Amino acid sequence: MKFTVGQIAELLGGTVEGSATASVYKLEKIEEAQEGSLAFLSNLKYENFLYTTAASAVIVSHQLELKQATQAALIRVDDPYLSFTRLLEEYQKLKGRLMQGVENPSFIGENVSIGEAHYRGAFSYIGHNCRIGDQVRIYPQAYVGDNVTIGNNTTIFAGAKIYADCVIGNDCIIHAGAVIGSPGFGFAPQKDGTYRDIPQLGNVILEDKVNIGANTTIDCATMGSTIVREGTKIDNLVMLAHNVEVGRHTVIAAQTGISGSTKIGDHCVIAGQVGIVGHIALANKTTVGAQSGVSKSIKEEGTFIQGSPAFDYKQNLRALAVLRRLPEIEKQVNELKEKI
Amino acid sequence: MKFTVGQIAELLGGTVEGSATASVYKLEKIEEAQEGSLAFLSNLKYENFLYTTAASAVIVSHQLELKQATQAALIRVDDPYLSFTRLLEEYQKLKGRLMQGVENPSFIGENVSIGEAHYRGAFSYIGHNCRIGDQVRIYPQAYVGDNVTIGNNTTIFAGAKIYADCVIGNDCIIHAGAVIGSPGFGFAPQKDGTYRDIPQLGNVILEDKVNIGANTTIDCATMGSTIVREGTKIDNLVMLAHNVEVGRHTVIAAQTGISGSTKIGDHCVIAGQVGIVGHIALANKTTVGAQSGVSKSIKEEGTFIQGSPAFDYKQNLRALAVLRRLPEIEKQVNELKEKI
Amino acid sequence: MKFTVGQIAELLGGTVEGSATASVYKLEKIEEAQEGSLAFLSNLKYENFLYTTAASAVIVSHQLELKQATQAALIRVDDPYLSFTRLLEEYQKLKGRLMQGVENPSFIGENVSIGEAHYRGAFSYIGHNCRIGDQVRIYPQAYVGDNVTIGNNTTIFAGAKIYADCVIGNDCIIHAGAVIGSPGFGFAPQKDGTYRDIPQLGNVILEDKVNIGANTTIDCATMGSTIVREGTKIDNLVMLAHNVEVGRHTVIAAQTGISGSTKIGDHCVIAGQVGIVGHIALANKTTVGAQSGVSKSIKEEGTFIQGSPAFDYKQNLRALAVLRRLPEIEKQVNELKEKI
Repeated sequence: MKFTVGQIAELLGGTVEGSATASVYKLEKIEEAQEGSLAFLSNLKYENFLYTTAASAVIVSHQLELKQATQAALIRVDDPYLSFTRLLEEYQKLKGRLMQGVENPSFIGENVSIGEAHYRGAFSYIGHNCRIGDQVRIYPQAYVGDNVTIGNNTTIFAGAKIYADCVIGNDCIIHAGAVIGSPGFGFAPQKDGTYRDIPQLGNVILEDKVNIGANTTIDCATMGSTIVREGTKIDNLVMLAHNVEVGRHTVIAAQTGISGSTKIGDHCVIAGQVGIVGHIALANKTTVGAQSGVSKSIKEEGTFIQGSPAFDYKQNLRALAVLRRLPEIEKQVNELKEKI
Repeated sequence: MKFTVGQIAELLGGTVEGSATASVYKLEKIEEAQEGSLAFLSNLKYENFLYTTAASAVIVSHQLELKQATQAALIRVDDPYLSFTRLLEEYQKLKGRLMQGVENPSFIGENVSIGEAHYRGAFSYIGHNCRIGDQVRIYPQAYVGDNVTIGNNTTIFAGAKIYADCVIGNDCIIHAGAVIGSPGFGFAPQKDGTYRDIPQLGNVILEDKVNIGANTTIDCATMGSTIVREGTKIDNLVMLAHNVEVGRHTVIAAQTGISGSTKIGDHCVIAGQVGIVGHIALANKTTVGAQSGVSKSIKEEGTFIQGSPAFDYKQNLRALAVLRRLPEIEKQVNELKEKI
Repeated sequence: MKFTVGQIAELLGGTVEGSATASVYKLEKIEEAQEGSLAFLSNLKYENFLYTTAASAVIVSHQLELKQATQAALIRVDDPYLSFTRLLEEYQKLKGRLMQGVENPSFIGENVSIGEAHYRGAFSYIGHNCRIGDQVRIYPQAYVGDNVTIGNNTTIFAGAKIYADCVIGNDCIIHAGAVIGSPGFGFAPQKDGTYRDIPQLGNVILEDKVNIGANTTIDCATMGSTIVREGTKIDNLVMLAHNVEVGRHTVIAAQTGISGSTKIGDHCVIAGQVGIVGHIALANKTTVGAQSGVSKSIKEEGTFIQGSPAFDYKQNLRALAVLRRLPEIEKQVNELKEKI
């Protein structure tokens, strides 16, 4: 997709200095930009690049006073960073909107309803009795089991798998290789030391605007639903066990695991490689530091914990700072004992 | 699948109170159940729900004395919980048995034998020279490489991948996205600081009744076999490296990693996010607490360890309890030194 | 593929004792080898197996003096281990070379160039405008998005996914289920406590001879590139976040996660289950022990750190050794206080 500098300026409500007919077709950083690129200058630390960049156009502030002439055309706006972000968003929307149609072969079961302007990639699979909204994009080799519901404007990337009976909201993004609704890890130990499968009959519900990272796995509930609420963002390689509930607008970083039936509140921030035991609850606005092991419920909103086992963040930092002096402390205690 | 209350009662050897012709088509918790559901009441803490539930039928004990009339039909049995579990299992068996036939397109190589009553989903791939048993279910987009053997009644879910030469037993379940038999991580460091691939020629053997979780990876042996023995259950996102052997009826929770050539005994319990170094052995009935790092062999049966590095579970708990008082201890030692 | 003992001897420049016409078709360990196998004897600890093995042929040293007659044919060479390794490599090359042709159905977009002697498996997907080199193997159900470049002699295993715009070098191996180029985890917190997606426009560049393990995920850069440089080997279930750069000939073990914009040097060794925070840099030849949490840059080459937070490896070992005596130390401090 190519645009002229004039078209971009019009979209942003900006003014052009230089060639309004120059064409740009990609967005790049000012220090790396090549011909045909559009870049931006927000932090004046990078101003020198403005005079040397190969970018065809640069978005700058109305306020900026040039120290010398530029090769690149300039698009003057109030806030270059905001304008650039807006362009990024427009660009993504445009890409999504252009992604339409059905590639063959793809599989669609019986009694499926699917909305307008959707994309189904080659080798994608949609089982029987699914209800799928408008402008949904199902990439190649994605799997949607029987009886699944998917809202409007949701994207399922290549090879993501959604087991039967799950419910996916509007405006969700599920990245490549993610697995939604795999049966939970439930086994009843028998008297002879073997294990018997406990059938897992529930599903997973993702509410609206949920993002699920690549190769993340979310198990279905034993009965009822494993739930991720509106606006929550989950990174790659995360594991949510059966019957977990994650609140609204919470962020969970990569490789974290949450055990069965635990409830995470709204507006929480869970860093990477955290482990949380089953059957506990974290209050709204809880923050958990990276690599923590959380073994108890957090009742007070806004608590910040870290460590394995996790406790107060600052207290943990102080304890760990002393940890490396532990051999010295032991030595001193032994010396004191001898003196007395 | 719809059933009448009378049919369910007959299956369970129970007696009906209320409409034996009411139909039910799903299993739900009594406190969440909706019309058309079958629920159960085992724990009397939930008895009040019996009088308000929208479930069409509820399984209750012969002993239960009603405090008021119920909307729902009742199915009286000896042990409501056991009866419900039995229904879950029958339901799953039925679902499995109904899953038969071949969806197209699917790929099957030359010289493949495959048993009766199997299911092969669309876009599934079976390579050359495979030997596949009866009632095997291979879901859409699953991959089975050349020369693979699969026993009877095994299920390979969507997009799971089994590399060439692996051997999968009877009654196994391999969940979506799992990778079985990827070449081990073996590289010979060269004098110039580069690495040379060590070819990995072995395979993976899963014995009978093994479950493998979603997106778990099990590498093949360098030579010989990486082995998971009968009845062992492995959760999601677990990593077993080349030449690992896991014993019978052992359970390994999510995101645990086991390094090359380590042997895990029978009836062990390995919690989540554990790391185990290579070339060690854990005795039968070893328990390893969550997030532990195990660096030494465990020789005594029934040992329970935790921590990173892992040592005796109780000793570890005591040490970690003192950890948070470490800054205070250091202060006291300094005060003592000054006093003397 | 069957070979005679004579053909193998000729390839290795060795001499035959026994039947040069015996045929072998697999490579096995001498202690496990069965009829039709070729084994080797390098460590004389295993010499007894030479006289009992069922292998059809064994590679031994010119120097070896037999204590008794052998069933197996012998191939005498200078260095049996090196000869065996060479056979392994030849075997893998041969297997790769034999893997050619296109299985159907497979999908290939418009304006794609693809080199000689390639393999494309059934249900593999190649998007529009891709440039793909010679002798590339794209296994079944692998996904290659639009505008991707792939060099010569690279293998993409079953179900691996490469998002649009990524660049993959020569002689790379990407294992099953790996995801290359998924959008980074970038969200701008809004004043109302919700998150807004930050569009991710960059790509991933893998240079030559890079190996990526099964189900590993590498996110694309926000702008610019996430880069893995020449000769670097990455194990299974690893997570590299947006804009990470990993240097040349570095090794990263399973389940490690590296946060956004961090730079790892050349010839580093990162063990398993390590977490590294964002926006830091590790010098060349840094070694990080298993399960470490790295929160600060490492400036000195050749540093070896461990722990969470990570510090000097030996100091960490000493501190952790004292950790389990912590309850005893606290008790002693309390006793000392009472005495004074």
